[in-house]
Amino acid sequence: MEIKEYGEFGLIKHLTEQFALKNKSSLYGVGDDCAVIDNDPAEGKTVVTTDLLLEGVHFDLTYCPLKHLGYKACVVNFSDVYAMMGTPRQITVSLGISKRFKVEDLDELYAGMKLACDVYGVDLVGGDTSASMTGLTISITCIGVAKEPVYRNGAKPNDLICVSGDLGASYMGLQLLEREKAAYYQSHNDWVRQGGPKSGQPEPAFEPKFNGREYLLERQLKPEARKDIVAKLREAGIQPTAMMDVSDGLSSELLHICSQSKVGCRIYEERIPIDYQTAVQAEEFNLNVTTCAMNGGEDYELLFTVPLAQSEAIQQISGIRLIGHITDERLGTAMITRDGNSEIALKAQGWNAFKE
Amino acid sequence: MEIKEYGEFGLIKHLTEQFALKNKSSLYGVGDDCAVIDNDPAEGKTVVTTDLLLEGVHFDLTYCPLKHLGYKACVVNFSDVYAMMGTPRQITVSLGISKRFKVEDLDELYAGMKLACDVYGVDLVGGDTSASMTGLTISITCIGVAKEPVYRNGAKPNDLICVSGDLGASYMGLQLLEREKAAYYQSHNDWVRQGGPKSGQPEPAFEPKFNGREYLLERQLKPEARKDIVAKLREAGIQPTAMMDVSDGLSSELLHICSQSKVGCRIYEERIPIDYQTAVQAEEFNLNVTTCAMNGGEDYELLFTVPLAQSEAIQQISGIRLIGHITDERLGTAMITRDGNSEIALKAQGWNAFKE
Repeated sequence: MEIKEYGEFGLIKHLTEQFALKNKSSLYGVGDDCAVIDNDPAEGKTVVTTDLLLEGVHFDLTYCPLKHLGYKACVVNFSDVYAMMGTPRQITVSLGISKRFKVEDLDELYAGMKLACDVYGVDLVGGDTSASMTGLTISITCIGVAKEPVYRNGAKPNDLICVSGDLGASYMGLQLLEREKAAYYQSHNDWVRQGGPKSGQPEPAFEPKFNGREYLLERQLKPEARKDIVAKLREAGIQPTAMMDVSDGLSSELLHICSQSKVGCRIYEERIPIDYQTAVQAEEFNLNVTTCAMNGGEDYELLFTVPLAQSEAIQQISGIRLIGHITDERLGTAMITRDGNSEIALKAQGWNAFKE
Repeated sequence: MEIKEYGEFGLIKHLTEQFALKNKSSLYGVGDDCAVIDNDPAEGKTVVTTDLLLEGVHFDLTYCPLKHLGYKACVVNFSDVYAMMGTPRQITVSLGISKRFKVEDLDELYAGMKLACDVYGVDLVGGDTSASMTGLTISITCIGVAKEPVYRNGAKPNDLICVSGDLGASYMGLQLLEREKAAYYQSHNDWVRQGGPKSGQPEPAFEPKFNGREYLLERQLKPEARKDIVAKLREAGIQPTAMMDVSDGLSSELLHICSQSKVGCRIYEERIPIDYQTAVQAEEFNLNVTTCAMNGGEDYELLFTVPLAQSEAIQQISGIRLIGHITDERLGTAMITRDGNSEIALKAQGWNAFKE
């Protein structure tokens, strides 16, 4: 079905009417000049984050299903709210849609957003929908509450550096998807060169080699935000001194925390959590797995620091790894290699969309 | 200067460091996973609105200076907050930037945003900046407070329909800019056809015919949000029963209020406020000025309804015009023509970006 058959207001109604408001604080959602939110002051302060996703820059619809994209677009925002020790409550979604998209495509995208909103208890309360000249544009703003927001600037010397889950898998998933995309085009082009439809031969079926790599694909295509880790920290009464989520790579994020907190750090290569599939895939691609974990990005894990006194408490929480400690600023920021003999200065090689 | 010389974080710092936080509620701005806002509950509820502006769809950089664009991109969001009887306090700005833009271009854009934030007392507290494959994408979310938000759904039969300022000027400004853009290309192409640089003749200077039409251009390129009208209503103790801003055209907005309030309306053609320049320009273009005022859009005036009992109070406020009244739903939505003899049913011919 063509989008123009609905028109702007009809389309918004069609896409959003399945989203019922769940949160008490969501007083009024889609349908007026503004959404209206009534936060209970006892729940803390309001936190706001926003992410812009552009086709061809942040996602490739060749291998990213629209439902997954909708889910991920929401989750990356929720992740920023959890990274403040907050709870996401509302999102607004703005879309720029080119003519090649049909209503059914948007239904898929919104099905993913609805799933994310249901899983994380978030309400869709507003947005803007427009035609675009080229490609798909998704801009999401997420609003949440945080009783005592945790910033990036509170890390102190001797604090322990912790990270949730494992790192580098999403990046390896992306490499895998890119490899299979190239292989598919190769196979298709070979067939075209041999005459294509005129050859009388059907195009050979292309089977991407994803077997046993499901975890890597899931980490790239359908990441989760660490709501569970924030809940466990709260339960244990642990208030991190600094926290952020790992979206640009561990190295880049550690540098943010250190520069904003005016401290240095030492992390241990052997302590960096890496999944088995990540390691196997890195070897297959002949990549250094530590480099992938340090600079890959899109992990959406939580990186945080806690006072040394909480060492025992933090080690009792599953899914959290101690990877190092904060130092005086003058000691700089470095990783101690696996053999324990050398230090490598951290560099922000994280994703930079403005690079050539 | 090339954007890549800054990188993403350097660019954000460069663009936003001139924005000092002005509002007490803006606890933390740019630089963390989220901005943190601490609204005083006595100030009311939180309101949120968002707008996505895409190059080639919502703006044309041929005639829209970047500084004006930055100003307008903010103001259209503030307008939505005022349309709830609210006060805008914070914005987040997400940008997608193609390679043809230089740092100096973004400086211009942000100078316009800063001016708008200064004029309206709003803080820039966050955003996202990314490369884009094509053109400029601007996504702004505005957060404000509203003690008693005014929705679109509260209009009652016999309420008076009011509108601020005048209508249709922005649309006429756009037509004028489009005409002069076409004339410029005509003049340039004529010169090229006659040999261009090879002819030895310099390209004739092109002088757009804007004289005496400054108001129309200003309404299109640098609109204002009606902060003043909201202040006057508050001062007079008038609480509208329904309100929205006129962005898609009076006709479309009246239909929104009527359908959401489940009422009908009658407005009087002769009461629709139209500026002298708008009328002159419409005649020059051989357009019906009422049609321009009803369907042109981008006026960013306030359309609202008040109880009949407030007739006198509302007429004492300058800059507000009574244009009709709300009726029972069964009477439908119509405009009574200037001669008083016929009724024309309102139609939403407002701007529809999904039309062919």
